[in-house]
Amino acid sequence: MSEKTIPYKIYLEESEMPTAWYNVRADMKNKPAPLLNPATHKPMTAEELGVVFCDELVAQELDNTNAYIPIPEEIRNFYKMYRPSPLVRAYCLEKKLGTPAKIYYKFEGNNTSGSHKLNSAIAQAYYAKKQGLKGVTTETGAGQWGTALSMACSYFDLDCKVYMVKVSYEQKPFRREVMRTYGASVTPSPSDTTEVGRKILAEHPGTGGSLGCAISEAVEVATSKDGYRYVLGSVLNQVLLHQSIIGLETKAALDKYNINPDIIIGCAGGGSNLGGLISPFMGEKLRGENDYRIIAVEPKSCPSFTRGKYAYDFCDTGMICPLAKMYTLGSNFIPSPNHAGGLRYHGMSSTLSQLYDDGLMEATSVEQTAVFEAAEQFARVEGILPAPESSHAIRVAIDEALKCKETGEEKTIVFGLTGTGYFDMVAYEKFHNGEMTDYIPTDEELAASFAKLPDVE
Amino acid sequence: MSEKTIPYKIYLEESEMPTAWYNVRADMKNKPAPLLNPATHKPMTAEELGVVFCDELVAQELDNTNAYIPIPEEIRNFYKMYRPSPLVRAYCLEKKLGTPAKIYYKFEGNNTSGSHKLNSAIAQAYYAKKQGLKGVTTETGAGQWGTALSMACSYFDLDCKVYMVKVSYEQKPFRREVMRTYGASVTPSPSDTTEVGRKILAEHPGTGGSLGCAISEAVEVATSKDGYRYVLGSVLNQVLLHQSIIGLETKAALDKYNINPDIIIGCAGGGSNLGGLISPFMGEKLRGENDYRIIAVEPKSCPSFTRGKYAYDFCDTGMICPLAKMYTLGSNFIPSPNHAGGLRYHGMSSTLSQLYDDGLMEATSVEQTAVFEAAEQFARVEGILPAPESSHAIRVAIDEALKCKETGEEKTIVFGLTGTGYFDMVAYEKFHNGEMTDYIPTDEELAASFAKLPDVE
Repeated sequence: MSEKTIPYKIYLEESEMPTAWYNVRADMKNKPAPLLNPATHKPMTAEELGVVFCDELVAQELDNTNAYIPIPEEIRNFYKMYRPSPLVRAYCLEKKLGTPAKIYYKFEGNNTSGSHKLNSAIAQAYYAKKQGLKGVTTETGAGQWGTALSMACSYFDLDCKVYMVKVSYEQKPFRREVMRTYGASVTPSPSDTTEVGRKILAEHPGTGGSLGCAISEAVEVATSKDGYRYVLGSVLNQVLLHQSIIGLETKAALDKYNINPDIIIGCAGGGSNLGGLISPFMGEKLRGENDYRIIAVEPKSCPSFTRGKYAYDFCDTGMICPLAKMYTLGSNFIPSPNHAGGLRYHGMSSTLSQLYDDGLMEATSVEQTAVFEAAEQFARVEGILPAPESSHAIRVAIDEALKCKETGEEKTIVFGLTGTGYFDMVAYEKFHNGEMTDYIPTDEELAASFAKLPDVE
Repeated sequence: MSEKTIPYKIYLEESEMPTAWYNVRADMKNKPAPLLNPATHKPMTAEELGVVFCDELVAQELDNTNAYIPIPEEIRNFYKMYRPSPLVRAYCLEKKLGTPAKIYYKFEGNNTSGSHKLNSAIAQAYYAKKQGLKGVTTETGAGQWGTALSMACSYFDLDCKVYMVKVSYEQKPFRREVMRTYGASVTPSPSDTTEVGRKILAEHPGTGGSLGCAISEAVEVATSKDGYRYVLGSVLNQVLLHQSIIGLETKAALDKYNINPDIIIGCAGGGSNLGGLISPFMGEKLRGENDYRIIAVEPKSCPSFTRGKYAYDFCDTGMICPLAKMYTLGSNFIPSPNHAGGLRYHGMSSTLSQLYDDGLMEATSVEQTAVFEAAEQFARVEGILPAPESSHAIRVAIDEALKCKETGEEKTIVFGLTGTGYFDMVAYEKFHNGEMTDYIPTDEELAASFAKLPDVE
């Protein structure tokens, strides 16, 4: 297929959209380690998990064998309001860089939540509704996930209680207002509405909160309130399953034009976007059908893959959630306050952690000033103002494209553009004013955090 | 064609995108009144206009005869980064309303400027670059136009000086920061950087500024600085020409599925979106080939069509711009400060004014609390959080659909969803907190404003 025939944006028809999610665990020889009961250290049963999560989501969480899980029609109809998302050929960026590389990005920001998070939010809300629940609880940091869940709950007429990390609640009143537009209640965390919140407030008065702390509060409310369950926007197997829609659409769009990528790049916080984007490509790799370089990009200020330990750890600060085996910085690790945007969770998806440990993917970390430089460069030629999270992937995509410029290689690079930065202008302002700084945790800091890892045999 | 086969979103292929803009003036029997020299009251010549605007844009401004103007390839390539925009079937809204009406909306918000303004910004920047200029100046109120122009100038490597209404500059720091991301300089207006700005500041110390005032400053800079011209995001004939891309794509998408709309609805401030959306439909109407109900929706707080006078008036506060014949509230009219969002210009496009005066379209006005109710209802079922401006059209589309529910008529309604409200959360917050109020100017206020209209024979 000649260059000329590849459009700027490859859109699939609605009829070409995937009708089933792909479960990469089915093709993994080494399955991700199971969640453990924090008291007994034994694998969590479906019954135990059912106290926290909806039944069908528990089944998806534990399913390591079925490669394809049909997407219910109600979810597919919702997807049609903002999907298929475009796979964009970055012609203008290529030209600006003067690279022979061919760059594509899968753009997930064209919906009001501003990110890919909506793909799993609508699925989780659907199963909650199907189970006859009254509502769901969750935590949110930067606010993308909370917004996505609010939209999904509004669509299915479910109550939605969001615990928002207090520092974000105060710094991002607009995100909060978007959630209110969709009818969600938003509480700054830690709060005095939960036992664990009151305990944390007593121990750390004046704290700005953390994701791990907001998770504890949301889980406490879900498990103590009749007709409620807890939902989570990343890390879990079920979330990666729903997010496989990103990778499946990407693959279908590439296949339509006979494009075979050499490198696939995604930013990684808890792993929801990366896991979704790479899943069908990783599946081919696991089955020995094809090979790809897959690169996870994380912030140097929160480097789970590149400097974390692969160990069982708590998922939350209150230590009321199951234990997960993952690359982790320790559940007490909180990134420096100068860190802008998301990608600030202390751990990483168990599935991705296992794949990384098996050498099936690479990881790299970047400093945020370099990330914002890439973001601005991208915005000026490609139009879209990217989210700080997504810009981690842009940074490495540009770096790889510049390597191609040196070597003359015409590599095909695909990266995930997870979202837009419209609610991150405070960070952009800091960058413009030269006030943005970088932070790299010291070995001593990490060692202190690792020392608190639970002792699991 | 059966209902089932119409997708949620109708996308054209890039190859189906229009290659020429449509100039509705060519089909108008009564042409829009010409711009007049404010000193001589004689029609502005191309030479006179060339001091303010780029040469090719002057030609477009004065061209009342050519129906189609080819879109240069460079502009079409830029369009491909965010166009064709989807024509969305509002299945979920229809269901929620329980109406037999079929509702479609043309969504122009899927780009970082957040609105349709980019369609004309890129065209104006292109012609400025082609003329070898160094840069352009403009004004912006709520910020959509300034953002769009910043993006366009960044793409063509042009300097961009934006005069932003001071009250917006202070209340919307994030919009300002987006413009800075694209390399624009943003000055709060009135400022001490211009003669007219200093004069206004001396007469009205502490003023929050107005669009008319920011226009005066931008024009002064453009006409006094070597290698600069002034560009405007609405009102002008050339802008409506560029925005015809909205209507042409809408018509092509409807034709693809043999859909014939009964009612076409657009919000109207200066008229850029409305004029663009309706142009090919109006063309059919003017040529007697088809008939449509066309409805302009404006705020009750700034009702140019519904309560204005059809007369020659100043386009700016400083009275340095040409005079335009239009439906106007008087160039001194400033909407009440409680008015949220845009649609606050005192006048209306000369082309639309003539069409309205000829009875070829209707106009109606709505109160902002009713507009925000419609916005929230729309967001909760259709996902997209709409801009306050766009929500004026949503309000009337919902009202028309509810009339169909009463009568049982299966009318087809098309409206323009011009943009997203991500930078308008202060207004949404007021609405959520029950603090939003409505304002309708009194007859006395308008009479006082009309008394200052220039005396043009």
